[in-house]
Amino acid sequence: MRAEVVGVGTELLLGQIPNTNAQWISERLAEIGVDVLHHQVVGDNPERIEEALRHAISHADVAIVTGGLGPTQDDITRQAVAVVAGARMLRRPELEEMIREKFARATRQMPQSNLVQADVPEGARVILPERGTAPGLAVEIEGTLLYALPGVPAEMREMMEETVLPELASLAGPASIASRIIRCVGIPESRVAELTDDLFQASANPTVAYLAGGGEVKVRFTAKASSREDAEALLEPLVEEVVRRIGDHVFTTTDEELEETVGRLLRDAGKTLACAESLTGGELGARITSVPGASEYFLGSAVCYSPMAKRTILGVSQETIDGPGVVSAECAREMAWGARRLFGADIAVALTGAAGPQPHGGAEPGQIWAALEAEGVSHQRGLRSPGDRDLVRRWAEQAGLDLVRRHLQGKLLPDDHRQA
Amino acid sequence: MRAEVVGVGTELLLGQIPNTNAQWISERLAEIGVDVLHHQVVGDNPERIEEALRHAISHADVAIVTGGLGPTQDDITRQAVAVVAGARMLRRPELEEMIREKFARATRQMPQSNLVQADVPEGARVILPERGTAPGLAVEIEGTLLYALPGVPAEMREMMEETVLPELASLAGPASIASRIIRCVGIPESRVAELTDDLFQASANPTVAYLAGGGEVKVRFTAKASSREDAEALLEPLVEEVVRRIGDHVFTTTDEELEETVGRLLRDAGKTLACAESLTGGELGARITSVPGASEYFLGSAVCYSPMAKRTILGVSQETIDGPGVVSAECAREMAWGARRLFGADIAVALTGAAGPQPHGGAEPGQIWAALEAEGVSHQRGLRSPGDRDLVRRWAEQAGLDLVRRHLQGKLLPDDHRQA
Repeated sequence: MRAEVVGVGTELLLGQIPNTNAQWISERLAEIGVDVLHHQVVGDNPERIEEALRHAISHADVAIVTGGLGPTQDDITRQAVAVVAGARMLRRPELEEMIREKFARATRQMPQSNLVQADVPEGARVILPERGTAPGLAVEIEGTLLYALPGVPAEMREMMEETVLPELASLAGPASIASRIIRCVGIPESRVAELTDDLFQASANPTVAYLAGGGEVKVRFTAKASSREDAEALLEPLVEEVVRRIGDHVFTTTDEELEETVGRLLRDAGKTLACAESLTGGELGARITSVPGASEYFLGSAVCYSPMAKRTILGVSQETIDGPGVVSAECAREMAWGARRLFGADIAVALTGAAGPQPHGGAEPGQIWAALEAEGVSHQRGLRSPGDRDLVRRWAEQAGLDLVRRHLQGKLLPDDHRQA
Repeated sequence: MRAEVVGVGTELLLGQIPNTNAQWISERLAEIGVDVLHHQVVGDNPERIEEALRHAISHADVAIVTGGLGPTQDDITRQAVAVVAGARMLRRPELEEMIREKFARATRQMPQSNLVQADVPEGARVILPERGTAPGLAVEIEGTLLYALPGVPAEMREMMEETVLPELASLAGPASIASRIIRCVGIPESRVAELTDDLFQASANPTVAYLAGGGEVKVRFTAKASSREDAEALLEPLVEEVVRRIGDHVFTTTDEELEETVGRLLRDAGKTLACAESLTGGELGARITSVPGASEYFLGSAVCYSPMAKRTILGVSQETIDGPGVVSAECAREMAWGARRLFGADIAVALTGAAGPQPHGGAEPGQIWAALEAEGVSHQRGLRSPGDRDLVRRWAEQAGLDLVRRHLQGKLLPDDHRQA
């Protein structure tokens, strides 16, 4: 079963609000095995709404339209549906009654204009609202099942969950879908694809998508089968094989953030963590503490932006500052050592580097040093990040978190100076 | 000038990620007076991408396509553009060179597959990336100007701002638009609207929009005229009047971030700043250092998440920890005092609170204390934030930054315990 999703509303085309409805509807449809082929958004314009509906009807088995069912003069989805269905508009007395009653219960005066919400194209079914006053519509046009739902997310979701999804699930029959996400760090997207592409090229099921960004790569693969269990059974051996091929770069097969993985490992190991930060300015600590319950294992972070603070608070030596400089393996190591002592932590991780746009401490923008200190362990990693200030900082955080992850998993690489 | 926006990516149709690009592009196009007629999203499927492009070309003067320019086999927008343009694909040696160089600079091995990013339909212009390795494309097809941009938001935005928007603005001709944004903190949206709404009700030009979020309120007003100068002349007296009415809550009329305002004030005053953070975990420092050049005035931040770190590093007294607790005006004051001494800063600001979801230090989730210490100044502000962990942290940062702003502008309010 194939679906199109159409959003109606000039405010969407002006960029005033995000089209969250399309994402939510698509996610729900994928879960019941309905393929979404196409999203469209059109403004409050009769011809363009009609054209969008015609496109959906001629391409898909199901069209889900949201928005334009309100009581004002720019709400014209009902009329467009009637035109496309070639149906007369009829005022339904039972809807008129319901609308009057909703207003009476809210002890509000009902503007006469609200009664247009009782108009329904002949032959359409009405989906009654629990919230709001806008009824939804369901109508079959040329073999395509068209649902018109309110644009207000809560009202749309209610009708999707109580009416549309159950109807479609029973029509779609046994077809179900399942997805898995593997996330990895320290390896470029193209290398991940090279290692795993052949697993997916043979057939269109399961399918694969690679998504790079924020200093990591996501591999998402999706399988279809007659039941969710069967779809998951198709994925299970693939998950194993993909993890085997990508190796230690994989940090999760359950779609958690790297800081969640690190938090889980710290909690399991009963270890505490402290940080020393320069170029990231506190963002490493902010990410670690974005996980509820981080106080169980996180002690704090010494953000020492100035060389003086590195010296007086973290104990970085004047020789290091004058010699290799504040962006160096030596400085990172001394920062980590200082943070471990300052906070009395089991593990300390330090980040220093040149975030750009200017060179800093004799280093070019993008140069990063990460260091980890723990009982009997002293490890540094140097890398060069592309991109702007935000990306350099993000790569630095990923490198720091990855050092902690590898340390706790016994997977620390020999010190190398490559991308993390 | 009329535009269509096309997003390419199966992950969008699966609802795995929101289509934020369409909203952002639409907003920017509206600002320069380009009407967006239609959004589409299609998956990584050649026929459907081509159909979407043909629709855009036949309906609009400008088509902006995002996504599908990466190096993997599911990135096929380049090919679809070539097919629709009826053009051969040529490998551009200068792009090949650029891609090789980007990898070499990052000291990373380049997978051969990355070189497909050097393929360009004959007759197309290339938009060079600063971040990433995916070049954008610009090509005229049947009188429609088609831009193909990367799907990664930061890479797309860079090309929009530096190339696409300036090109379109100059084509859009004499119908011009100008916008101004006033941003304020410590005042609810409804109060801002109450104070200023009557200025805009008289006419549809200029228009006003209020946008609340992230612990601040934006007032955006937009005027249309035959030239940009005329449009700006319509706005100027309004800016003045709106600022007069909202008063000290306004921190910028030039759309800068609160951390930029604070940075500018610190630089102008020749003062240094240090922070002490608990619930924000380093995010306050991260925001301050997200501004290039922050090293001129920012010394660092002591992120002391554990009570022990507050005591040993910042010198918070055991009496305070045992008495009013770690979420209290006293603790915030002692943290600020400690940070000022630790870093040797002119001004120190401290944040403590309960971010949730659990109560913390005897305080309910949402309770925040901010404190500022400077020569002869000791100031605390208590507030209660609604919302989840992220929003509570954000409100805390806004309160801390706002204390510094008000201190430097001589606008500190008497200590009060209200929303910041």
